[in-house]
Amino acid sequence: MVIGLCQLSLFIKAQADHDLWLKKVTPLPVNIVAAQKTNFVNLAIQALQQNWRGKANATVTLLVKQDVDIKDDGFKLAPNSIQANNHIGILYGAYELLRRQQTGQLVNNAEIVNPSYQQRILNHWDNLDGSIERGYAGKSIFWKGDKTTTITNNDSILWLEYAKANASIGINGSVLNNVNASPQILSADNLQRLKAIADVLRTYGIKSYLAINFSSPVRLGGLKTSDPLDANVIQWWKTKTKEIYDLVPDFGGFLVKANSEGQPGPQDFGRTHADGANMLADIVKPYNGLVMWRAFVYNPNDKDRAKQAYNEFLPLDGMFKDNVIVQVKNGPIDFQPREPFSPLFGAMKQTPLMPEVQVTQEYLGHSQQLVFLSSLWEEFLKSDTYQQGKGSTVARCTDGSIYNQKNTAIAGVANIGLDTNWCGHPFAQANWYAFGRLAWNNTLTSEQIAHEWLQQTFSNNISDKNNPLAVNNWERNFLNPVKKMMLQSHEAAVNYSMPLGLHHIFAGNHHYGPGPWYAPKGVRVDWTPPYYHQAATNGIGFNRTVTGSNAVNQYQQTLAATLNHANTCPEMYLLWFHHVPWNFKMKSGKTLWDQLCYHYNSGVKQVRQFQKVWDALEDYVDKNTFATVQSKLKRQVKDAQVYKDACLLYFQQYSKMPIPYELERPVYDLQLLQSIDMLEVNR
Amino acid sequence: MVIGLCQLSLFIKAQADHDLWLKKVTPLPVNIVAAQKTNFVNLAIQALQQNWRGKANATVTLLVKQDVDIKDDGFKLAPNSIQANNHIGILYGAYELLRRQQTGQLVNNAEIVNPSYQQRILNHWDNLDGSIERGYAGKSIFWKGDKTTTITNNDSILWLEYAKANASIGINGSVLNNVNASPQILSADNLQRLKAIADVLRTYGIKSYLAINFSSPVRLGGLKTSDPLDANVIQWWKTKTKEIYDLVPDFGGFLVKANSEGQPGPQDFGRTHADGANMLADIVKPYNGLVMWRAFVYNPNDKDRAKQAYNEFLPLDGMFKDNVIVQVKNGPIDFQPREPFSPLFGAMKQTPLMPEVQVTQEYLGHSQQLVFLSSLWEEFLKSDTYQQGKGSTVARCTDGSIYNQKNTAIAGVANIGLDTNWCGHPFAQANWYAFGRLAWNNTLTSEQIAHEWLQQTFSNNISDKNNPLAVNNWERNFLNPVKKMMLQSHEAAVNYSMPLGLHHIFAGNHHYGPGPWYAPKGVRVDWTPPYYHQAATNGIGFNRTVTGSNAVNQYQQTLAATLNHANTCPEMYLLWFHHVPWNFKMKSGKTLWDQLCYHYNSGVKQVRQFQKVWDALEDYVDKNTFATVQSKLKRQVKDAQVYKDACLLYFQQYSKMPIPYELERPVYDLQLLQSIDMLEVNR
Repeated sequence: MVIGLCQLSLFIKAQADHDLWLKKVTPLPVNIVAAQKTNFVNLAIQALQQNWRGKANATVTLLVKQDVDIKDDGFKLAPNSIQANNHIGILYGAYELLRRQQTGQLVNNAEIVNPSYQQRILNHWDNLDGSIERGYAGKSIFWKGDKTTTITNNDSILWLEYAKANASIGINGSVLNNVNASPQILSADNLQRLKAIADVLRTYGIKSYLAINFSSPVRLGGLKTSDPLDANVIQWWKTKTKEIYDLVPDFGGFLVKANSEGQPGPQDFGRTHADGANMLADIVKPYNGLVMWRAFVYNPNDKDRAKQAYNEFLPLDGMFKDNVIVQVKNGPIDFQPREPFSPLFGAMKQTPLMPEVQVTQEYLGHSQQLVFLSSLWEEFLKSDTYQQGKGSTVARCTDGSIYNQKNTAIAGVANIGLDTNWCGHPFAQANWYAFGRLAWNNTLTSEQIAHEWLQQTFSNNISDKNNPLAVNNWERNFLNPVKKMMLQSHEAAVNYSMPLGLHHIFAGNHHYGPGPWYAPKGVRVDWTPPYYHQAATNGIGFNRTVTGSNAVNQYQQTLAATLNHANTCPEMYLLWFHHVPWNFKMKSGKTLWDQLCYHYNSGVKQVRQFQKVWDALEDYVDKNTFATVQSKLKRQVKDAQVYKDACLLYFQQYSKMPIPYELERPVYDLQLLQSIDMLEVNR
Repeated sequence: MVIGLCQLSLFIKAQADHDLWLKKVTPLPVNIVAAQKTNFVNLAIQALQQNWRGKANATVTLLVKQDVDIKDDGFKLAPNSIQANNHIGILYGAYELLRRQQTGQLVNNAEIVNPSYQQRILNHWDNLDGSIERGYAGKSIFWKGDKTTTITNNDSILWLEYAKANASIGINGSVLNNVNASPQILSADNLQRLKAIADVLRTYGIKSYLAINFSSPVRLGGLKTSDPLDANVIQWWKTKTKEIYDLVPDFGGFLVKANSEGQPGPQDFGRTHADGANMLADIVKPYNGLVMWRAFVYNPNDKDRAKQAYNEFLPLDGMFKDNVIVQVKNGPIDFQPREPFSPLFGAMKQTPLMPEVQVTQEYLGHSQQLVFLSSLWEEFLKSDTYQQGKGSTVARCTDGSIYNQKNTAIAGVANIGLDTNWCGHPFAQANWYAFGRLAWNNTLTSEQIAHEWLQQTFSNNISDKNNPLAVNNWERNFLNPVKKMMLQSHEAAVNYSMPLGLHHIFAGNHHYGPGPWYAPKGVRVDWTPPYYHQAATNGIGFNRTVTGSNAVNQYQQTLAATLNHANTCPEMYLLWFHHVPWNFKMKSGKTLWDQLCYHYNSGVKQVRQFQKVWDALEDYVDKNTFATVQSKLKRQVKDAQVYKDACLLYFQQYSKMPIPYELERPVYDLQLLQSIDMLEVNR
């Protein structure tokens, strides 16, 4: 049945970009030898046979056999064999082998390829009505509002394609619904749908999880309280959990956003996050379930939102059950174009933390802008916490290398919807891809990932893959310039939106476009940009040093000392940690104001350069993808210009200094920019 | 009374840019000796005393005395005297002397300064309801609809300021109403208003003229015909003319747009333009009146609009009475950003022709764009017709140097309205100024004119005029860069709108912004851009060679031969005269298509550069002017971008060639551009 579904899919989504990085190739013959023909092994055989680009008529042996060096669902790759401890490892090994072939990397010696994290999970912020919070690629592939109980053949096909794409990059879990969870997710009807989805995803080794609403006992169960220490509440959760596991025996567990942005939680009953998490952890423990408890908490009354997750969670270190993982966003605020890492990483030494990154581009241009997020995540994962000495990177603090956690995991907020190309922007597929690859191997470079992704996604456009000249030509004319563009794209976005440590100066609500002025009456201050940029005639930036909110001291001492001084703080975080005068002298010798202008200006120029690069590539890409990217880059240039003008003209009111005259002048008037909604205007 | 009015005006228009190039200065003492204290001489004395920047306590003698070398209202300027044949010449001499002082040009030797043209006339396309056809600086300063008979003190003040400004640059005539004339202009009420206006303008030597409607005898007089050979018609015009001269004894005469764009004319009765013009000429002759008869005629049925004025008027050469002047637009089409000169110039050897240029920026960005038109007019006046050998420039063919016409004149369609700064754009004042200066001296360079205008308009911002360092600093930092900007501005506009001889590819009706696609059903083809650009897959441009419309042969033989070949035709006129393939090889070695792209790209870059120049000059200009120009330049950059994208994306549909990838990519989509009205969108 699985194969039948795959073939069917050809008919319903004919567009090239629906195939993601799994483009069909003309395979060479290959002999596969496999003793155990389980489902996963069969899928591996099928994948190898349909995509083999290695030596013709080679023989490959697939072997499930314990090896102490192979961890979890890792595998050992040798020129003629794939070995793993379990069957899914064979499938991952097959995809890796094919990827090596596609990208021209030969496997000469036996090589063990273990995953960095055990659980590599997509979080879908999908609502039951089919909408997706911060989703920019159409409606949910899982939920459809009233029609939750009707599951069509097309649904199943899509879920299977989704599962296969995930498996091909090593993703093994999906939280199927929004962290701002409806209690209704646990209704009998929706659990039936969960079962249907889980049954399909399981084919490719993807575990299903649910996000739950902490007050479900009251709102769904009709109890009088949701107090996690209340016996009836505990019983309610036990019953509900059994109901789930009866339907989905390999159900992964719960994700909980509690006491955050208005969501209910244990603090409503005077209990701690640990009380709440542990109650659920005890209940799912017999089923080997996990509880992923989010640390994204903040309070409008606190003076510095950036400090709050640390303040609330650090005291709980060591108090969580061993099947709880605390899920921590990469930065202390909220998925900004650039943030320093959250100080919780490395600091919570007795609690497994799982990094949460955002694949969907809430703050990075939605599906309108080409921004390769791998650079952002690489920067984050390689950030040194110094908590166990130099080299205590976020990656090593979370993947078990340093703290030897029993459970390791990483989450990415998915950018997937019903759009034919899944992600809205063709290059947003690269972010899905990059998340999966980094979740498997958190030491990969963005350059490697971009290279792989481009090879797999676009190399079918090489006129003749057996002709080295044609391949060379393609690499020189397409691969290299596009890779360069991808690798510059995050810095470009930072430049034209929030350089030098600026953050959260977005237009209200939809977070698309600039709104440094946005501060309507009645909106809590920590939801308004002036709270973050603190622009005034005496300077700009949030003072988080010891003379300010003292957020620096949440970091390890050495690092804190560096961050605490404007002259030693890396300039890319300058205005995150410091309120400095407009004429502050930067390392370049320029004033802060001038440097800020140069950054915005560079951002616009960089995106214009992307346009030039892309426009020259019409012959190398299918028509639809070419036109889509071209049109989106056009908009990106316009929007970058709006960002630049809006921020510079707004801040200029305080700096009272001219934009350096050698720079291109503003195109728009501030007044106009303050009156429009960019989501609408440049559409 | 005159002086009283001048002083009053200080109170009603306090804004600096209302003073035009006549900025108040702190004068040094001067002794003026004048035998004849007539009105003009008194104004000269007043001007000298209020603005003297020459040697302190110098003595200047004003002398009205015949000198054969002084022509018309010219004058002889010597270190200590101004001599003229008539009183107004003294006033012109005084303004010239003050201009020399302002611009630091000493008068060391006696020097005769004669005007190039006897009549230097502004044409106001003002309607009686107060609107102005192609006016972008507010309503009419002369007409107010219903209130035509009520003349306020403010009206008189404004008219006097207007007259003074004109006199200061040598303009001596004004046609007070639109060439698309209402018959009502000749009603008794409106003639009363004419008298009131003429009485004020006369103060500064400005003669008043009216544009008339050729069917006035029927439509105003109630006759059955307006046939110019009909005795009753002739009598009607005689009576009406007497009525005018009774009110305004120095009335200048009539301007007539006949049988053009739907206006009535002698051809309606089977008569020629000469019949019509001569009838009126005979009638105004006893009063020394002139008839200015426009040659701007074209017919939707002819194959090439550019040929028609020549075809209709050349056969009439020699048939006009000696007080008729045929008024010919600079180019054969209609005030385009760039046109070759009209072939009538130099070709009509027995008829005085008066050039008509457009000061108002109908096709050159209204009052939104900074375009110094002097460059266009200089190019036109210095164009060589070759009609009497090399050096037979348009200037020399029209100013009496070659054909020794009895009457010489030049007309500029005014850009003046009720806006405080008169012209909408502060730099549009420079076009009014340049028209006057070129009308007086058609050999001036645009560089000289820009220099003078900037000195007079902005040098009051020099911190200390007696400090050579301050003056030097001002010249280096303000005068030179702004002058450079002005001198590049026309070419920039040509580049971003209609380079290489393209013409009339404007949006319909308002002529603001690009509309190469504009061709709605029911609109006559010669009012649609495709008629002019002829873009097709085989190339672009209007074939006016001998294999096409043969318009080239309206030019003198040598010139025609040069124009007739694509390889010898100046590239700036290439697509005016030739339909050439997209891959036509240009002198640069580039294809035509690439060259076209480069021109559009340069235009945008040039205007961006203007923004940079201007933004650096905040300290050198009054606040209001700085902000106005800054904001208008912003819009100009946006509009230039729209032009570039619209034209290139539209033509690319035919060229099917890429925009060179080294050039900045389009920002907009063609579809969007085709759906918007630029006058509204970038407002």
